[in-house]
Amino acid sequence: MESIKINVMQKLLKANDAIADEIRGSLKKKNIFFVNLMSSPGSGKTTLIEETVKKLGKKIKVIEGDIQTTLDAERLQKLGIQAFQINTGPFGGDCHLEAAWIKTAIAELGTDNMEFLFVENIGNLVCPAEFDVGAHLNVLLISVTEGEDKPLKYPLAFQVSQVCVITKTDLLPLKHFSLEKLRQNIGQVNPACAIIEVAAHDGVGLERWLEILKEKPGEK
Amino acid sequence: MESIKINVMQKLLKANDAIADEIRGSLKKKNIFFVNLMSSPGSGKTTLIEETVKKLGKKIKVIEGDIQTTLDAERLQKLGIQAFQINTGPFGGDCHLEAAWIKTAIAELGTDNMEFLFVENIGNLVCPAEFDVGAHLNVLLISVTEGEDKPLKYPLAFQVSQVCVITKTDLLPLKHFSLEKLRQNIGQVNPACAIIEVAAHDGVGLERWLEILKEKPGEK
Repeated sequence: MESIKINVMQKLLKANDAIADEIRGSLKKKNIFFVNLMSSPGSGKTTLIEETVKKLGKKIKVIEGDIQTTLDAERLQKLGIQAFQINTGPFGGDCHLEAAWIKTAIAELGTDNMEFLFVENIGNLVCPAEFDVGAHLNVLLISVTEGEDKPLKYPLAFQVSQVCVITKTDLLPLKHFSLEKLRQNIGQVNPACAIIEVAAHDGVGLERWLEILKEKPGEK
Repeated sequence: MESIKINVMQKLLKANDAIADEIRGSLKKKNIFFVNLMSSPGSGKTTLIEETVKKLGKKIKVIEGDIQTTLDAERLQKLGIQAFQINTGPFGGDCHLEAAWIKTAIAELGTDNMEFLFVENIGNLVCPAEFDVGAHLNVLLISVTEGEDKPLKYPLAFQVSQVCVITKTDLLPLKHFSLEKLRQNIGQVNPACAIIEVAAHDGVGLERWLEILKEKPGEK
């Protein structure tokens, strides 16, 4: 029974990876940089996109993943950008986004007048890490209030990411939390991950984030 | 393809529910009150259990669910109680706990000298809500830093819970967060949910939590 489950899963992932590669290549040809944001619920993904739009202007489109509601897409549309909401509720409440859905969403959004595509993945540290959505850059957000042990507990999400954004640093110092220990734990599971600290609402730490976006590291 | 997936899922859930009912009945006969804690990563499940053990003494056993690591079980064992760690990593990194695994864990822990059984479910607001683990009381924890929109985005987790614990209230007030709005949103998706506010490290708000445990509401 377990081996059947693993076989089916491997076939699904292989099909997903092929579509993801196709998306990555196709967007690269059009000079569109695709960033996939992953985190727990409430770590600040939408806020980071909002502040990025304010700095980089309107050539950004966003695909929002949620089980239910269109709250996040509505927040972003208020900034005058195109946002497409995927709700996985009707499909059994899936806890990840798949490349095939992203491909459909890109077709709906259109690629004209777009320099950056952001995907806000479903809010959890488990499922999104297993499905390549075709991004050039995977970004893991973790807020200082989530505790320093999360990289050890959810290593895959940190390992598939090239950038780790520590959010809500305006709340520091916190009891029972060491920023240094969090940085050490991230380094332990993924020594190559670039670590940025931000307090997005205050605009603190955004310079380095924006520099990375302008470099477009994974697109090359 | 989608209908096959739904059929298989329904069969799995039905088998799971039968085992969950068996666990619920069997523990009730032994006067053991079983509490299932669900939340995002870092909302304070382990801390709430730690503070509960300090107040209610050693007649508590805990089943810890994590994809990887035994960090939380180790934290609890330091308090002199029995804690059993389930790691779902070897099973594809499952994002929930199933009743069959809980049954096995209870057999390993033994039911002697136990008045309360706590399960700390895998840290996310999606999968744990779909699987009944056989608890008498489902508890949803949400920290004030996660934002007020989470009940609307993850309604099922709030709907299957009888108690909602708002944690880390010592961090209030927070910019861009309204406690009143969070309480309204919880009430909108589950009007019957009892809402408690705690700052567990400071011992604030624990009285009502401990009263609920002593009442053992779902066991009757």
